[in-house]
Amino acid sequence: MPHKTIKASIIGITGYTGLEQLRLLLAHPTVEIVHLTSRQHESTRIGEVYPHLAHLDLNITNTNHNAVAKDSDVVFLALPHKTAQDVVADLHGKVKVIDLSADYRLDDAATYERYYQEHKHPELLKEVVYGLPEITGAEAIAGASTVANPGCFALLGQMLLHPFKGLIEAADIFAVTGSSGAGKMPIEGTHHPIRNHNIKSYNINAHRHIPEIIRAGDITETQLNFVPTSGPFTRGIFANAFLRLKGDIEPLDLAEQAYEDAPFVRLQESVALANVVGSNFVDLSFTKGVDGTIIAQGALDNLVKGASGCAIQNMNLMFELDETEGLFNLGTVYP
Amino acid sequence: MPHKTIKASIIGITGYTGLEQLRLLLAHPTVEIVHLTSRQHESTRIGEVYPHLAHLDLNITNTNHNAVAKDSDVVFLALPHKTAQDVVADLHGKVKVIDLSADYRLDDAATYERYYQEHKHPELLKEVVYGLPEITGAEAIAGASTVANPGCFALLGQMLLHPFKGLIEAADIFAVTGSSGAGKMPIEGTHHPIRNHNIKSYNINAHRHIPEIIRAGDITETQLNFVPTSGPFTRGIFANAFLRLKGDIEPLDLAEQAYEDAPFVRLQESVALANVVGSNFVDLSFTKGVDGTIIAQGALDNLVKGASGCAIQNMNLMFELDETEGLFNLGTVYP
Amino acid sequence: MPHKTIKASIIGITGYTGLEQLRLLLAHPTVEIVHLTSRQHESTRIGEVYPHLAHLDLNITNTNHNAVAKDSDVVFLALPHKTAQDVVADLHGKVKVIDLSADYRLDDAATYERYYQEHKHPELLKEVVYGLPEITGAEAIAGASTVANPGCFALLGQMLLHPFKGLIEAADIFAVTGSSGAGKMPIEGTHHPIRNHNIKSYNINAHRHIPEIIRAGDITETQLNFVPTSGPFTRGIFANAFLRLKGDIEPLDLAEQAYEDAPFVRLQESVALANVVGSNFVDLSFTKGVDGTIIAQGALDNLVKGASGCAIQNMNLMFELDETEGLFNLGTVYP
Amino acid sequence: MPHKTIKASIIGITGYTGLEQLRLLLAHPTVEIVHLTSRQHESTRIGEVYPHLAHLDLNITNTNHNAVAKDSDVVFLALPHKTAQDVVADLHGKVKVIDLSADYRLDDAATYERYYQEHKHPELLKEVVYGLPEITGAEAIAGASTVANPGCFALLGQMLLHPFKGLIEAADIFAVTGSSGAGKMPIEGTHHPIRNHNIKSYNINAHRHIPEIIRAGDITETQLNFVPTSGPFTRGIFANAFLRLKGDIEPLDLAEQAYEDAPFVRLQESVALANVVGSNFVDLSFTKGVDGTIIAQGALDNLVKGASGCAIQNMNLMFELDETEGLFNLGTVYP
Repeated sequence: MPHKTIKASIIGITGYTGLEQLRLLLAHPTVEIVHLTSRQHESTRIGEVYPHLAHLDLNITNTNHNAVAKDSDVVFLALPHKTAQDVVADLHGKVKVIDLSADYRLDDAATYERYYQEHKHPELLKEVVYGLPEITGAEAIAGASTVANPGCFALLGQMLLHPFKGLIEAADIFAVTGSSGAGKMPIEGTHHPIRNHNIKSYNINAHRHIPEIIRAGDITETQLNFVPTSGPFTRGIFANAFLRLKGDIEPLDLAEQAYEDAPFVRLQESVALANVVGSNFVDLSFTKGVDGTIIAQGALDNLVKGASGCAIQNMNLMFELDETEGLFNLGTVYP
Repeated sequence: MPHKTIKASIIGITGYTGLEQLRLLLAHPTVEIVHLTSRQHESTRIGEVYPHLAHLDLNITNTNHNAVAKDSDVVFLALPHKTAQDVVADLHGKVKVIDLSADYRLDDAATYERYYQEHKHPELLKEVVYGLPEITGAEAIAGASTVANPGCFALLGQMLLHPFKGLIEAADIFAVTGSSGAGKMPIEGTHHPIRNHNIKSYNINAHRHIPEIIRAGDITETQLNFVPTSGPFTRGIFANAFLRLKGDIEPLDLAEQAYEDAPFVRLQESVALANVVGSNFVDLSFTKGVDGTIIAQGALDNLVKGASGCAIQNMNLMFELDETEGLFNLGTVYP
Repeated sequence: MPHKTIKASIIGITGYTGLEQLRLLLAHPTVEIVHLTSRQHESTRIGEVYPHLAHLDLNITNTNHNAVAKDSDVVFLALPHKTAQDVVADLHGKVKVIDLSADYRLDDAATYERYYQEHKHPELLKEVVYGLPEITGAEAIAGASTVANPGCFALLGQMLLHPFKGLIEAADIFAVTGSSGAGKMPIEGTHHPIRNHNIKSYNINAHRHIPEIIRAGDITETQLNFVPTSGPFTRGIFANAFLRLKGDIEPLDLAEQAYEDAPFVRLQESVALANVVGSNFVDLSFTKGVDGTIIAQGALDNLVKGASGCAIQNMNLMFELDETEGLFNLGTVYP
Repeated sequence: MPHKTIKASIIGITGYTGLEQLRLLLAHPTVEIVHLTSRQHESTRIGEVYPHLAHLDLNITNTNHNAVAKDSDVVFLALPHKTAQDVVADLHGKVKVIDLSADYRLDDAATYERYYQEHKHPELLKEVVYGLPEITGAEAIAGASTVANPGCFALLGQMLLHPFKGLIEAADIFAVTGSSGAGKMPIEGTHHPIRNHNIKSYNINAHRHIPEIIRAGDITETQLNFVPTSGPFTRGIFANAFLRLKGDIEPLDLAEQAYEDAPFVRLQESVALANVVGSNFVDLSFTKGVDGTIIAQGALDNLVKGASGCAIQNMNLMFELDETEGLFNLGTVYP
């Protein structure tokens, strides 16, 4: 193989995003794992913390992030929001960084502060590249030192709006997510006895992914209703959007144009969540509703295309590999 | 108790609606079961067909519907659409009938024919009373000889629109149902290996419940996008509607007015499917979205409030019992 | 109705057992709810804590248990183990008490101490009647002032062994429970993303229900392997036992004899968990395996027959009502 | 890479086993897909039949099996039992064959006939090698022209008994499987409304995998109780065995010896189904129960290690690749 091996590390391995990052990196043909770190574990074999990884000869350590960077070609940050702020600031420029937190996803500090908290490194917001390959474009990502990986709801929401950028008058999105999106800490909302047969919306029109979504449609917050919802399944997000556009357009034509070169976008007649679970594909459908409305639907695996798979796509582009390397044949777990 | 016992029979006991009707009739304090019929079984103890009913000293027979009517005060028809047409025509006026099929839900034969098939008894469509107590009103149902019980999606859709009747410019409804709504025959869409982690829409803007829904909003088919969807759970429907109304209204005020006297409607701050499973309650929430839109959500158990529970409500009204008799204390199965 | 109304209260309403007790008491024809208490809530409408109960005009208070007892004919204690010890000691003899905790289920303080902790009221252990109607017998329960309600695994385990009491050489029981058995506090084991597709045993041969189980078989701890297991569903326990007996017996004959008068026991050809969910029935099957072994299977709803439903059975017996009152027509939630 | 590419085909692509075989072959670094055949489809793009594969430039054809063999280095047969009999007989010796059906798993025609039907090619039963690498051994598989891939329950059952071969007096196995084991045809037992919350045993002591299982323990059918059970989940089998052995042995010592060189066997302190889903690992635990019994537990993914993953292991051995090639880094889908 012509590609040299990429030395990759994960900072914050113990959460679901970190674990999924590891799954995907192990399946990647030109990656070698260097460090897996967590502040909670002092050099522990990973199988002792996560028995599903008992076959791996890998340790979790609490190696300092600068030492990690020194040994690595790329560092995946799977840290909580806010914690990531300083680590990115410290590593930016020293090593390629893919930040899976929300800390550098927004362009301006004011919006970040409104949805999250104060930003300690606002000057970096313009330097970090937002890594949604199908919208950002391969070139911008290839040239980035640090990439901010999109939010899971945000990525799907943007894919639904992007073909109609500049044409949208109003967008109403209902999106339902599996429980893995809530992370590994047990909370009331992920308590199995109820979650197992519950559907419930939360943070309606107040979710932190809204400022990411509206950029793709070139709309303002007053043009979007966004209804995030939790559903009784583990993996995936399914979204339904009702769109009102300027002019009479053929939605499928615009979608085909927008995603012509996107290997992970599949325009389907009908979207089904089970078709994407475990894979990096995002399935989309666009049909005309009554009175000029567009009904757009989409599905993805929140941990793959909605997080760690998209991060691999970004890595591939940053290292000038084929965008699909290690991802395309990562099949849907179907059934 | 002052009420005389009501002699009740179920024609078409073996489907999920018939079984749920039996569960609710057995829990009703003033009902006595007379006949349970099915054309597939010739006098079989019910526990042999359905072991979960092995404790009951009841037989399934294929008694003719006229003989059933003669012995009964009320007959519940849990027959497939089309089959019910003739049975209702034959029984109407002879006994109180509650028809759980779709055959007499619509007012005019032309619409029925467009969504279903030809109607053989169009003259009866105006005589049969549509039995959605919260909208039809108790009086009309009390005076009915035959009642057409609403469809499950249709009932919830109507509850979301009813408070705004005459004020609606556009309604976009996304509604997700559990697998029990598909009935007892195994099909591809209810095959567990996939359904267990799937979400998929079907019959978008073509579902047969649309003509029921639009009546409650006093709108036409061109003002409604209706997206029926199947989800990975057994019981219940959860719906989210984006409504565009004439004028600036306070949705909760109108909803409180509309449902002031409705014992089974609960206006909640936030709707959760798990709060209604097993019960006859329909939970609703109404909030303002961006730019004047209304976000309305609702949940019910498709087999109870969406079918056999509503049928009990209708029976109570037809026999001048309290509307809540045998239903109010039928608790949510939570967890 | 000839029966006077029974005034019932629940101490510890906010857990799953307390909630289920309330569901069943509300469905009971001769019960009136007096107090619902919890130390966490100071006179709160129950719907504010549990929106699925928003229709009820009932408050949760932190009324002292003695005041509760004074107003009640029967008090259901749904308190954590250990906490219940003193409350039972305080109330015993003043009011009829049904204790759903484990604190008075065992006969002797030494065994209790070995499996739980020190017992502060060992003298009461012999006075409190173990309330498993099918084994204890109606008479003993009818005469009791305080009844200890069995554990959920324990009840099912005993039902499997009871017909063979005195004949058992070895019993190997594998039993899998739904997540509601773990209570309402979110923990790692009930975290939906994993629990949704997990099966895992725990406390093998060390579970606290073992001393209850062995009594029914008249065996010692060295004759029982008991493998409690958690499964990916909300309600119910399914158990499979391999039994080795003295002599060549016809297991079904003995089971029929043992449960001849037991209205909630159904001997089935094949046991299916879905047949009992939501109901107070316990389904059992007994067949011969190879080389003289017996394969016994059983299923029940852990919150009904395994907890609050059995408590209603006990109440019925204590108040000389029919044992099935308010329970028999509480149907299986099927599907 | 030194390995030449292996040309692989799948005969019978449309079932769950065929689909999973394709998923795993696509992820394998040295395999090229040649033919995917089905008698139901005449040259159809695979994405039209299975939208989750819409990104693949692959067709399903009904190419004759001899033509398939001519173009291939290895042929995977994912045909129904009985249909496979003749195809294997026709292809044996012409191309390497891995048969996922049951038709050549047993050694003698009489046993096959007792559990299945008459065998038309009994002479081949001794020539086809049973491909359970951890028990059969790598050498025998490497030398095989045709391999019979084990049954899913059978493989797990054998893994539980194998370390104790010749020492077993009695084995009682309870094993619960996900719904994907039933295949892609909707039937009553896989109907979601019930399966979603059901557990039910079937074919107790009569399951077709029994003659495979007993070989590994060197026992007879009268020494094994085998209770196959269906559970409310999609993927995986979890098994619990109670074993009675000759002599006082340390089970873990024997297991460690037996599986010393087995890269896909993980001896865990505690087995959890979620730890293996999506992967080729089989997790096992062995502990001492009461009175000399051994409690053995195991879990695997029925479609991977229980079918198509084991087939890849066999292929690797037949082509002298590392046994783990393309499988080891196929991670658990966790959560």
